[in-house]
Amino acid sequence: MDALPTFDLVLFGGTGDLAMRKLLPALYRRSAAGQLASDSRIVGAARSPLTREQYLEKVEATCRAHLGKQFDPQCWARLAGQISYCKVDANSDEDFAALRAPLAGREATVRVFFLSTAPDLFAVTCEGVARHGLVTPHARVVLEKPLGHDARSSAEIDERVGAIFAEGQIFRIDHYLGKETVQNLLALRFGNTLFEPLWRRGRISHVQITLAEDLGVERRADFYDRTGALRDMVQNHILQLLSIIAMEPPASSDPDALRDEKLKVLRALRPLAGREALSRTVRGQYKAGATNGRPVVGYRQESGVSPDSTTETFVALKAQIDSWRWAGVPFYLRTGKRLQEKLSEIVLTFEDVPLAMFDRPAPPVSLNRLVIRLQPHEGITLSVLGKYPGEAMLLRPVELSLDFCETFKTPRLDAYERLLNDIVKGNLTLFMRRDELQAAWRWIDPIREAWLQYDYEPKTYTAGSWGPAAASALIGRDGFAWSNEL
Amino acid sequence: MDALPTFDLVLFGGTGDLAMRKLLPALYRRSAAGQLASDSRIVGAARSPLTREQYLEKVEATCRAHLGKQFDPQCWARLAGQISYCKVDANSDEDFAALRAPLAGREATVRVFFLSTAPDLFAVTCEGVARHGLVTPHARVVLEKPLGHDARSSAEIDERVGAIFAEGQIFRIDHYLGKETVQNLLALRFGNTLFEPLWRRGRISHVQITLAEDLGVERRADFYDRTGALRDMVQNHILQLLSIIAMEPPASSDPDALRDEKLKVLRALRPLAGREALSRTVRGQYKAGATNGRPVVGYRQESGVSPDSTTETFVALKAQIDSWRWAGVPFYLRTGKRLQEKLSEIVLTFEDVPLAMFDRPAPPVSLNRLVIRLQPHEGITLSVLGKYPGEAMLLRPVELSLDFCETFKTPRLDAYERLLNDIVKGNLTLFMRRDELQAAWRWIDPIREAWLQYDYEPKTYTAGSWGPAAASALIGRDGFAWSNEL
Repeated sequence: MDALPTFDLVLFGGTGDLAMRKLLPALYRRSAAGQLASDSRIVGAARSPLTREQYLEKVEATCRAHLGKQFDPQCWARLAGQISYCKVDANSDEDFAALRAPLAGREATVRVFFLSTAPDLFAVTCEGVARHGLVTPHARVVLEKPLGHDARSSAEIDERVGAIFAEGQIFRIDHYLGKETVQNLLALRFGNTLFEPLWRRGRISHVQITLAEDLGVERRADFYDRTGALRDMVQNHILQLLSIIAMEPPASSDPDALRDEKLKVLRALRPLAGREALSRTVRGQYKAGATNGRPVVGYRQESGVSPDSTTETFVALKAQIDSWRWAGVPFYLRTGKRLQEKLSEIVLTFEDVPLAMFDRPAPPVSLNRLVIRLQPHEGITLSVLGKYPGEAMLLRPVELSLDFCETFKTPRLDAYERLLNDIVKGNLTLFMRRDELQAAWRWIDPIREAWLQYDYEPKTYTAGSWGPAAASALIGRDGFAWSNEL
Repeated sequence: MDALPTFDLVLFGGTGDLAMRKLLPALYRRSAAGQLASDSRIVGAARSPLTREQYLEKVEATCRAHLGKQFDPQCWARLAGQISYCKVDANSDEDFAALRAPLAGREATVRVFFLSTAPDLFAVTCEGVARHGLVTPHARVVLEKPLGHDARSSAEIDERVGAIFAEGQIFRIDHYLGKETVQNLLALRFGNTLFEPLWRRGRISHVQITLAEDLGVERRADFYDRTGALRDMVQNHILQLLSIIAMEPPASSDPDALRDEKLKVLRALRPLAGREALSRTVRGQYKAGATNGRPVVGYRQESGVSPDSTTETFVALKAQIDSWRWAGVPFYLRTGKRLQEKLSEIVLTFEDVPLAMFDRPAPPVSLNRLVIRLQPHEGITLSVLGKYPGEAMLLRPVELSLDFCETFKTPRLDAYERLLNDIVKGNLTLFMRRDELQAAWRWIDPIREAWLQYDYEPKTYTAGSWGPAAASALIGRDGFAWSNEL
């Protein structure tokens, strides 16, 4: 792995959950791999008045916890020497002034403002650093979801952040795009001639995208209850995956060529509004049940959730893409909390053979399928029927692994490690562009409006199940079944 | 594996090379597997005046030699009890009379006349058994290559054998069709929807079929010198494999549905005649060289070969199939003796991606390929490009195994074991039909005639090489290369 160019990284929300769980351990791993130039700097920034030593203690603790046996005190000592801390309250102008010292004299260095904060702080933070002259030509800003809560609020963020940073300096993270398997999917689709002819109506019968969590709302109850599954998961992660799956081949590997194609998919999504939105979506909310063998409370009993909350913790919906490639091919999307297991996967089911000549298991087992699994174990498998050895022509299913980490015996980069590298190198390919984000919100908002207009309250489902029965009925009406029901 | 119905098998040429090397060991293995009913009978028949004991001694020796450690005296004793011997000179009417005794009273049993003899004995042998009333409704006859030496002689055999046996009683063996991998190819093509859309012009750039032997003429010099590689290998094995690769999906798994489709391919082969045959074929004959590290003599120095022989021991040719599916897709066929290694494979090379977006090895390495290997190790592999793990989009080749014996942990049936089972069960799918054979000869004969007409003598090649340079030039003119040259 190449060394990264020297950078200064200011980590707003530097004491927060995401910084501690993901970003700082990712920086540790890149440092341990020898990828961080020794003159790169990391400045933690948050509201707490911590000393540098107090901050380092916290960071060391989280690195130890996440790295386990791989934690090496020598590596840590090297990284710690590059970390400092700065108290910054985004609403205090003086605080921003304090950031000038650690960045002074380094105007020609790559400068990353990583905003791991609530979205209502995005604009003021950008304005703060701008006011103090910290936005250099080499500066870039990283925004994490939620990027607003609807088209209007998202546009406002884009407007204000865009007044300070050019679009090419804005890195909107969707960490699902950083997964090796998603990259591999692009490689398989556009680096080979085998898949492209199959990747269309007439060849693919339907597509499923499932992002299932076994966890409940955990510590995010307050935020989650104002947001719901549709905005927390579908608007960003699921639609990003969908646009990667469904896009036309880009004209080059240029970031904008790829993002142009993703945008075309999002714009071709058939609007779901009014009564149509009701019949094609299923809202759910978990009630008490059990996951992983232990009883868990219902969503309304979670601490931080209103006891009469009507926030959905589950969504299933049927999307359609009005394009020559995909017309008539349903895309079933679902996500939820407190489901039976943690499972993130994309399943493309091919049409059945027009004529079954040989003895084979009954469909759907005999159908060809491409499964792109993101969690719990990343990998791509292709299901085919092969001949069972012997004199009779018996066909039996075989799974081919298209997972190349195994083949190449190379460790996988964690999504955040990869995205951090891209940010420092300035590669925008895997980040969402402003117009993509807007297109996604414009498709999501009418669904929520329809739910409100028609008082569509979530159907309950038992924690530890696969969601409301209505979700099975939604896909069952078309003669298909969710992959976990096969 | 199911038990086979009781049968009587008369093995003409029962002391010959094929019987000893292949058929009797195959019968041993099926017996050891418990598949032979205890009242099945095997009657060895040949010109030598052997006693039963002398014949059993020979058979035991060959079974021991071929089975090695798997030879089990108890299994052998069981099989030996089912074997008898009968001296039969095909030109002696009395000898046929002697066959009546072992078959008496078993008219309702499946009766197989296996003609492992020279083709000029096919007709007289059939006429002999017919004259003595041995052809029952349950009788069938098995013919081994060579099935004549041109269209006329082959038609004569068909005519005379066909006067005694119905076409549904005639099993013309091509043992390449008995290979598990060839069956698996049919399963992959017609049991899945993944391959069929790719299996055509526009998707496949060209096809290669190579049947390369490292051996010389060995003990077949006399026969081989009158035959040559074109008739010994191309007319039967290569054209059979080509017809399986190129055929349209049959309407059912009925033997004739499949053979109808193979026939259509053979009939769609663009005729190679006159000057065109010269420019599209390469004849070769090996001269002294070395294989597997030891010096070997040239073909003309082999014992039994005339020192001025112009028989070809190598053929390469470019075939074209005039059909909607294959128009414009060249099929390069080659076979030879004393080549660098024993290698039988079919390689389908897909068209390159229309636009190479990602960093990848230079073509031809980056091309997608399906390789169906029959020797030395059977298997099917698909070459794709996957993403090398890491932050850059580097594509690297990966081979996917579509070989299911490994997956299912089941031993492979040897081709002759499988074909014997099919004969006893009466399944004609993997046997050549009269019209197929005629179509193959009608395509082959004009090539030989052109060679004669224009005095096209074989080009020499060094034993242990990959044949004459002209064979590389033949494929190279179209911008391709033989798979061993990649």
